Amino acid sequence: MSSEAACIFCKIIKGQIPSFKIVETATCYSFLDIEPIAKGHVLVIPKYHGAKLHNIPDEYLKDILPVTKKIAKALDLDIDGLEGPGYNILQNNGSIAHQVVDHVHFHLIPKRDSETGLIVGWPTTKGDMAQLAELAKDIVSKIEE
Amino acid sequence: MSSEAACIFCKIIKGQIPSFKIVETATCYSFLDIEPIAKGHVLVIPKYHGAKLHNIPDEYLKDILPVTKKIAKALDLDIDGLEGPGYNILQNNGSIAHQVVDHVHFHLIPKRDSETGLIVGWPTTKGDMAQLAELAKDIVSKIEE
Ligand SMILES: [Zn+2]
Ligand SMILES: [Zn+2]
Repeated sequence: MSSEAACIFCKIIKGQIPSFKIVETATCYSFLDIEPIAKGHVLVIPKYHGAKLHNIPDEYLKDILPVTKKIAKALDLDIDGLEGPGYNILQNNGSIAHQVVDHVHFHLIPKRDSETGLIVGWPTTKGDMAQLAELAKDIVSKIEE
Repeated sequence: MSSEAACIFCKIIKGQIPSFKIVETATCYSFLDIEPIAKGHVLVIPKYHGAKLHNIPDEYLKDILPVTKKIAKALDLDIDGLEGPGYNILQNNGSIAHQVVDHVHFHLIPKRDSETGLIVGWPTTKGDMAQLAELAKDIVSKIEE
């Protein structure tokens, strides 16, 4: 993990690098992505330096989704029904998972048409029920350790 | 939005349809996706029927990220550094944004190799700074309304 001192998102939080700020709370900060993949592409980040979701203490996560929800409404994305404008919330962990800046960030990406916004590739498999049962048991036992 | 009575995720929460449960709290429920796009593909859902993120009250969102974090650790995805296994957190709103079941669900998708897991397409644009400044002003003024 890179150091906090070298982190561009930590500098943005501190105001050392300018940003197009949207909403700020005691534990999170949000601003426009300056290389948007759709109009209104926003980043919501915890005010805690950590590269991946598992590095962030719970108290720095609590405002993330409520703030994201509030911004989606302000972007007029709150139209009910599966049709109409959509949006994706995406948080990438690791360079293999498309992460570039190693300070946790949640992308709020409007999806108004097929050309802009997130393009989702979904290599679905049909799960084997016996293997899934075994896997669930393994995960639950690790959580309960 | 479909009714709660017809919703398969509401039925899973109530135990009316079986699932491979991972973690349950007072406000959220998690289980294995039975059509996984990677081994350990988990869904984390609020115990509140709503199709899109903006339909879910904040109190039903508070456990979502802490629970997702806990599961990522149990899946041994908590290896630091940008290299090594990655994972994506994805929540889709609207059919145009790849949503299929209209009860909010967060995908936790391990990304261990390029063939499995989420395939991300990213049609980046170079933002126009003046337009971004204007847009930020518009969004902030809507939030403050
Ligand atoms: Zn940072
Ligand atoms: Zn439901």
